[in-house]
Amino acid sequence: MPHRIFLTIFLTAILLIIGCKNKKQQAVYQSARPVHEMGIISTSSSPNAKLHDVPISAVTLGDGFWQPRLQANKDRSIPELLRLLEEHGVVDNFRRLSGRRNVERRGYLFTDSDLFKWMEAAALVLQSGDDPQLKAKLDSVIDDVLAAQGKDGYLNTYHQGERANERFTKFKSNHELYCLGHLIQAGIAYYCGSGERRLLDGAIKYADYVISLFGPDKRQCFPGHPEIEMALVELYRTTGDRKYLDFADYLLNHVQLDKIEEKMTASDFQYLFSGLPFTSRKELKSHAVRAMYACCGATDLYMETGNPAVWETLQTLWKDMSQYKIYVTGGVGSRYQGEAFGNKYELPNERAYTETCAAIGNIMWNWRLLNVTGDERYTEIMERALYNGFLSGVSLTGDRYFYRNPLTSFGDNERQPWYNCTCCPPNVERTLAKIPGYIYSTSPEGLWVHLYHSNELNWHLDDGQKIRVKQVTKYPWENKVEITLNPKTKKEFSLFLRIPEWTPGASVSLNGEELKDKPVNPGSYFEIRRKWKRKDVVVVEFEMPVRAVFSNPRLGEDLGSVALQRGPVVYCLESPDFPNTSVFDVALPLDPENPQKGFTTQFQPDLLGGIVVLRKNALAYEIPMTDQPLYRYAPFKRPTRSVELKAIPYYAWANRGVSKMEVWVPWVKE
Amino acid sequence: MPHRIFLTIFLTAILLIIGCKNKKQQAVYQSARPVHEMGIISTSSSPNAKLHDVPISAVTLGDGFWQPRLQANKDRSIPELLRLLEEHGVVDNFRRLSGRRNVERRGYLFTDSDLFKWMEAAALVLQSGDDPQLKAKLDSVIDDVLAAQGKDGYLNTYHQGERANERFTKFKSNHELYCLGHLIQAGIAYYCGSGERRLLDGAIKYADYVISLFGPDKRQCFPGHPEIEMALVELYRTTGDRKYLDFADYLLNHVQLDKIEEKMTASDFQYLFSGLPFTSRKELKSHAVRAMYACCGATDLYMETGNPAVWETLQTLWKDMSQYKIYVTGGVGSRYQGEAFGNKYELPNERAYTETCAAIGNIMWNWRLLNVTGDERYTEIMERALYNGFLSGVSLTGDRYFYRNPLTSFGDNERQPWYNCTCCPPNVERTLAKIPGYIYSTSPEGLWVHLYHSNELNWHLDDGQKIRVKQVTKYPWENKVEITLNPKTKKEFSLFLRIPEWTPGASVSLNGEELKDKPVNPGSYFEIRRKWKRKDVVVVEFEMPVRAVFSNPRLGEDLGSVALQRGPVVYCLESPDFPNTSVFDVALPLDPENPQKGFTTQFQPDLLGGIVVLRKNALAYEIPMTDQPLYRYAPFKRPTRSVELKAIPYYAWANRGVSKMEVWVPWVKE
Repeated sequence: MPHRIFLTIFLTAILLIIGCKNKKQQAVYQSARPVHEMGIISTSSSPNAKLHDVPISAVTLGDGFWQPRLQANKDRSIPELLRLLEEHGVVDNFRRLSGRRNVERRGYLFTDSDLFKWMEAAALVLQSGDDPQLKAKLDSVIDDVLAAQGKDGYLNTYHQGERANERFTKFKSNHELYCLGHLIQAGIAYYCGSGERRLLDGAIKYADYVISLFGPDKRQCFPGHPEIEMALVELYRTTGDRKYLDFADYLLNHVQLDKIEEKMTASDFQYLFSGLPFTSRKELKSHAVRAMYACCGATDLYMETGNPAVWETLQTLWKDMSQYKIYVTGGVGSRYQGEAFGNKYELPNERAYTETCAAIGNIMWNWRLLNVTGDERYTEIMERALYNGFLSGVSLTGDRYFYRNPLTSFGDNERQPWYNCTCCPPNVERTLAKIPGYIYSTSPEGLWVHLYHSNELNWHLDDGQKIRVKQVTKYPWENKVEITLNPKTKKEFSLFLRIPEWTPGASVSLNGEELKDKPVNPGSYFEIRRKWKRKDVVVVEFEMPVRAVFSNPRLGEDLGSVALQRGPVVYCLESPDFPNTSVFDVALPLDPENPQKGFTTQFQPDLLGGIVVLRKNALAYEIPMTDQPLYRYAPFKRPTRSVELKAIPYYAWANRGVSKMEVWVPWVKE
Repeated sequence: MPHRIFLTIFLTAILLIIGCKNKKQQAVYQSARPVHEMGIISTSSSPNAKLHDVPISAVTLGDGFWQPRLQANKDRSIPELLRLLEEHGVVDNFRRLSGRRNVERRGYLFTDSDLFKWMEAAALVLQSGDDPQLKAKLDSVIDDVLAAQGKDGYLNTYHQGERANERFTKFKSNHELYCLGHLIQAGIAYYCGSGERRLLDGAIKYADYVISLFGPDKRQCFPGHPEIEMALVELYRTTGDRKYLDFADYLLNHVQLDKIEEKMTASDFQYLFSGLPFTSRKELKSHAVRAMYACCGATDLYMETGNPAVWETLQTLWKDMSQYKIYVTGGVGSRYQGEAFGNKYELPNERAYTETCAAIGNIMWNWRLLNVTGDERYTEIMERALYNGFLSGVSLTGDRYFYRNPLTSFGDNERQPWYNCTCCPPNVERTLAKIPGYIYSTSPEGLWVHLYHSNELNWHLDDGQKIRVKQVTKYPWENKVEITLNPKTKKEFSLFLRIPEWTPGASVSLNGEELKDKPVNPGSYFEIRRKWKRKDVVVVEFEMPVRAVFSNPRLGEDLGSVALQRGPVVYCLESPDFPNTSVFDVALPLDPENPQKGFTTQFQPDLLGGIVVLRKNALAYEIPMTDQPLYRYAPFKRPTRSVELKAIPYYAWANRGVSKMEVWVPWVKE
């Protein structure tokens, strides 16, 4: 009977759809947070996290500063990088193992991690909204990756096949745990972005294999490049399985060095920021990215365990960085040799190494510290790095990168589409994709606003109360932010507004009336506690003058110079803006009593993607300084020729061809 | 008959004595300069040398600055280093090959050169006067060295024996030609110091072997570390055999890179300062010692060949160094990575690499350039490096060395008696031993005085006219130099007195009467032409204020700071002199119109071997700068606490235990 046939077909179709759906919406991991609740690091259940992050999917970015960057990331950076990863054989390295391609393995031994970071970036983009085309590409890559996985769970294209006997023999250099860390993070991001478990299950299988071999009473291992520590804590938060947290704790604090099988020196462990107990560290003196990633992992560990010794170490290291070893751009890791942190005050400008990945590590670490404390000084560094030392790492077009981010260039720095060690590009991509998730947090007290950008938040407070928030602003170019709150029901809670340290002062008004009962202190969160109702409007206005940044006299490199900053954006002089003068022959006349005097600002929509340009009357040396002697027995003469100083945001440099550039400008008394 | 027996014995004895004497005073090399005429580089017959150097043996040093340093060099440094070379197996490496010791080879593949440099130092000391004990030690080492030489002439302890098959296969790293260069120089110095040829003959045998294998129409080679080029030109000057000059020219300008057998890149050759034609070089961007040694060799080559392209390149490179890449101490090679020259203005203070050997190479190069031109600017750099960046490389006691010579130390620099790469210590020793030979030159016009120090010269002018000169001075501590001339007969010639650039002004008097007919210009040689007679007395008096050295604003590292200098001596602040204040918290109040105002100077005979100490009222920050933030949006407050600034010569630092030190002191307006 046609009806029964039709019914059978109909029911079969339904079952198939449900089956597909089930395949997609696999069960959540036991005792873990639901997938749609997961933030960038998912701190909502962390006992020592004061703040709880908000899912990327809960925030819809509006027009403004970051929107075109995220669009370029999605439309150009991510597809183009996959093309380049394919071109350089990085995906084929997997296909080779599954027999899908008959090719030689190519690239450094850690290329898997480059692909995993790309996968994480793509998965994070999916968290901001469906993109079937990107999803299909990502799924195809996931197929290729998982097809290469060994039956035991092992998955590392360099150490499978002909080098299988070298597996887990050289932790110092083999990057196996580092690659696994990135696989875990890609798996979590994909799980969170698609609801699908398979990539994460593959990562778990590999992680379980590692944990079955190594640990306190087993063979000893250590990460030659920290990264896996934070991934393991994130895996614990995702799955609820404590063994991952315990293994992170083991790697950070309990590796038995006397039982390590390979030949290692104390300075090796110092440099790797690994092996030695994290709590024995007193300063940041090592490979910068390794140090930042280890600090991320340790902060994650602290959020779950509350170990006070870990916290004390984190504080010591953060002070070492923030007081002695960070550039005004938020970049860290000044030293070429070993891509390392230098000594205190070792912050050369032209010779700054400041790898893009180190700035990213710095952002990730400060985000974690902010989650622990709610302390504005961490947001400050995060924002400084985001707008400057991180963002300088990628071109406005999204397809050219800087590996290092110097603060002075003599014209020998050119952005590249590809680096053989291509760690930075996918790291940039995943960081851009995370930005919506960095704007807000919740806490039992209420809602926190860390970053300002037009967006709509559709989320809930810690107690489950639904809330929508709308931010409208042209920050960082303009100084006004309008925030409309729409709690589902009238409700008492606090709104914490970040008042950046860079502003001399700010005012906050509520529904048109300025709040004057307590001071609005720069460098803090301003709390408004009340019963909020729908359409309550808060307006924050920051004083946003051009600020001359002076360096500690101990930082000899910058003594006698200033950096220019407006809002969170650090500026530079770039040669295309100085047609008749070397940028290095310009000096800035300043009144030290009032150094912000005399600047003009103008938004130029057609320049470098739309930027505020700074201008001031300045002076140039008559004789180019390069024609003058290196040393004299008298002060060098004051510059006398009038020039207009024009400064552009540091992040936007090197987008008009190869150029000369400087951030720190010598100043003379006005 | 007793008489005849007596006569026979007597005659036999005479013959024996003559025989011994003949053995000692072997025939000079064909067409070469007599041994007692040889200066440090022996330029008297060089067609493109304006000046001709004076043998070390012609100068007897009197009391004063250098005398105790040369004494310590002879009494302590040289014996102690031989003991350490023995202890580390460097001499045994030779004895092993001759079967005198049954030991393993020890140390880096270039340890032979360390011993050869020590031998050169010992031989140079012998040029200043007999020392049977030192001569016996040196002779014993020479025996050990020569006993290891192969029948074909090959002599390199790393590549003899079990590694003989690696001989001449890896010019990039194997240092064979470098070691041969040092063997030649040791051979020449020994020939000159003892009249004995055997060490030099051994070196010649090896050099001839190399030349038989390599060259324009043979296999191609290149020095992985330049050094042999200058040694070959010196060998040409010593023996008169042009093939050595031709081979130096080949190595510097005519290596056929397309026929090199080992795998090399263009950047390898750039870095090695070798292989590529010397005349293709446009800047100093490479390993610093390699660059300096290659420039020495090229200048030697120019003196003999007059190749204008070589001279043009030398001028280009010298400008690159003197205008952009030299420290105020005369140190060069600022970059750790690759022990290399940095970019223009890349002169970090704490992170200065400035290897002692690079300062020595700089002295050797400028000495050669001075020989070509008689131009004071070369003497200026030579003297600056001698009193500062070179001399800082050895302790006052003569048995502790610095490999690197930073201009700021946070307290982590300690002099060492031994480095596994012990290139610097014997290099220091040979340089100290040369100092008497750097004081004077002759030219057809007359006599040149480059350096001031009490001494007696017993020499002749270019035309053979004998002359004795006596200098009496307490330079560099005092500003007066008395020079008594004693020509054998009354004779017209010029006396060229160096007037250093560091003096604001100087006066010259002759037999008590000031010479006022022409200006005495700092930074030049002041010529007095007359018929000189016995006991003519010339007195030079330099204005010798404390000078504040200001750096070019492009040198951001030093902007806002000054270095202090008096005479040729650069000063520093060292922590033992600041009991209650960090040297890094001190700022110097200066009147920019008159920056030398307000200093006091005092000779302290018991401090650091006797030094002039500088003092001035200064200011210190109330709050240590390390407790203050790295950046501020306003100028840091002026220091307010009164302290006495006490500065000691830079060369004398790190002789009172581990200390903190800085050369560049921030200044504030008085």
